[in-house]
Amino acid sequence: MSRRTARRRVQRWTARGDTAVRPDTLAAEEPLEIRIDGEPFTVTMRTPGDDMDLVLGFLVSEGIIRSAGDVRTAAYCAGAVEDGLNTYNVIDVVLDPEVSRHRPVRNVLTTSACGLCGRSSIDEVRTTAPYDLTADDVQWEPKQIVAYPDALRAAQKVFASTGGLHAAGLFRPGPEQPVVVREDVGRHNAVDKVVGWALRDNRLPLTGTLLMVSGRASFELVQKAVVAGIPALAAVSAPSSLAADLAEESGLTLVGFVRGESMNVYTGGHRLGLAS
Amino acid sequence: MSRRTARRRVQRWTARGDTAVRPDTLAAEEPLEIRIDGEPFTVTMRTPGDDMDLVLGFLVSEGIIRSAGDVRTAAYCAGAVEDGLNTYNVIDVVLDPEVSRHRPVRNVLTTSACGLCGRSSIDEVRTTAPYDLTADDVQWEPKQIVAYPDALRAAQKVFASTGGLHAAGLFRPGPEQPVVVREDVGRHNAVDKVVGWALRDNRLPLTGTLLMVSGRASFELVQKAVVAGIPALAAVSAPSSLAADLAEESGLTLVGFVRGESMNVYTGGHRLGLAS
Repeated sequence: MSRRTARRRVQRWTARGDTAVRPDTLAAEEPLEIRIDGEPFTVTMRTPGDDMDLVLGFLVSEGIIRSAGDVRTAAYCAGAVEDGLNTYNVIDVVLDPEVSRHRPVRNVLTTSACGLCGRSSIDEVRTTAPYDLTADDVQWEPKQIVAYPDALRAAQKVFASTGGLHAAGLFRPGPEQPVVVREDVGRHNAVDKVVGWALRDNRLPLTGTLLMVSGRASFELVQKAVVAGIPALAAVSAPSSLAADLAEESGLTLVGFVRGESMNVYTGGHRLGLAS
Repeated sequence: MSRRTARRRVQRWTARGDTAVRPDTLAAEEPLEIRIDGEPFTVTMRTPGDDMDLVLGFLVSEGIIRSAGDVRTAAYCAGAVEDGLNTYNVIDVVLDPEVSRHRPVRNVLTTSACGLCGRSSIDEVRTTAPYDLTADDVQWEPKQIVAYPDALRAAQKVFASTGGLHAAGLFRPGPEQPVVVREDVGRHNAVDKVVGWALRDNRLPLTGTLLMVSGRASFELVQKAVVAGIPALAAVSAPSSLAADLAEESGLTLVGFVRGESMNVYTGGHRLGLAS
């Protein structure tokens, strides 16, 4: 049994009147505490697996690190023990001292002026995003993009058994196979895992890629793409208004409702050969 | 134009080769800052609308308040101005001084022992949940529950135009119309809005109700139901393992994959007349 899933007894009820008891496989969810330089930083609920990717990608999204060299060590806390076994639910990241000295304070938004608005959220991403997406002139065939949701689903290992996980997959123009796919109960975690994988592999910024996500495209997901230097984000479902606004201002191509034979292009249609 | 939606130009692409430019309606997303007694507490991205419900429900979920009397005032910050207009994105809650004095520290999990695990998350909810769900002997007909997703969808005002919002609706046995429905780009926000509505209407604990949610059932959603005294949670999609564990320990009836003619009952089947 992988830690990514758990078995449970379930009563299946159908309107035809049959009720059956059977075992069911659920996506696992566990808390993960991230510590920076020994100090508690945050706790996120996540599906165990690719934990280092999750932590490193999260720190990229938060604007704390930009490359593998910014991290001195990242390891499961040896003292995180329950019933004599490591819980593997606490990861301690030790930053390069220079990075540590200059790291931004968390929740910058909460310290902003009283006039908090979508505009200020966008401005904050703009000031922290290290890459210029407008310079990325990668081109896609729209008919390739509409095939990505199926390719993403086919690559989801845990979803197949549980039906309970979001996925994020990175694609390059041409092949229909994703470069990497990550899964999680949380959409944002799946994206962080992709970005963390890229950081470990020294692939940031993710120039020339498209990130396909299984759910909706929120402001937060666009922000994570922009900060990682990903020039295109495609979602199976709808984007929010602020997601589209940030995409437009950042030069990100944003596509939604990608379903088999059609899609909606909200911003950056020039990368798909569409007149703007 | 409501603040809950925004219009945008979108390029619609189809595999048949037609590309059309048309206006599209997107679900709005804006930051909301919550201040408690004048101090910044948190910022959440949400769909504007029912903001007071969201804030109050969030404070119930966090274990800070339990009744309307715990709050002295809750109002949009008068100084939250952008371009001379109130942003309506900052809400200042003034607690009853007695409640304020005893309020729990936020992010209790981050201060827990090194052995952080799902078990400790469950224990934390158990110690903060003020109501005993096991005493709630409300009964449902399973065939009523499978009709709730359609009823929920029919009641979603903003989803109909944007396709981009999660919903949470409260039901009582018998009528197929929800008592209340709330929508948001975030699943957890939609649930907080329902709970905040109940608090304002002096309905906590929500004895004898079922909460139907449009997406998956995570640990966080089960936690919010338990803390509000809701004895049953039904989700259109899958629950996570920790959600099922918490439901079982709390005496909550948890149902997943509710789809037209069938559903999976994970815990508390006795409330649906199923042998346990």
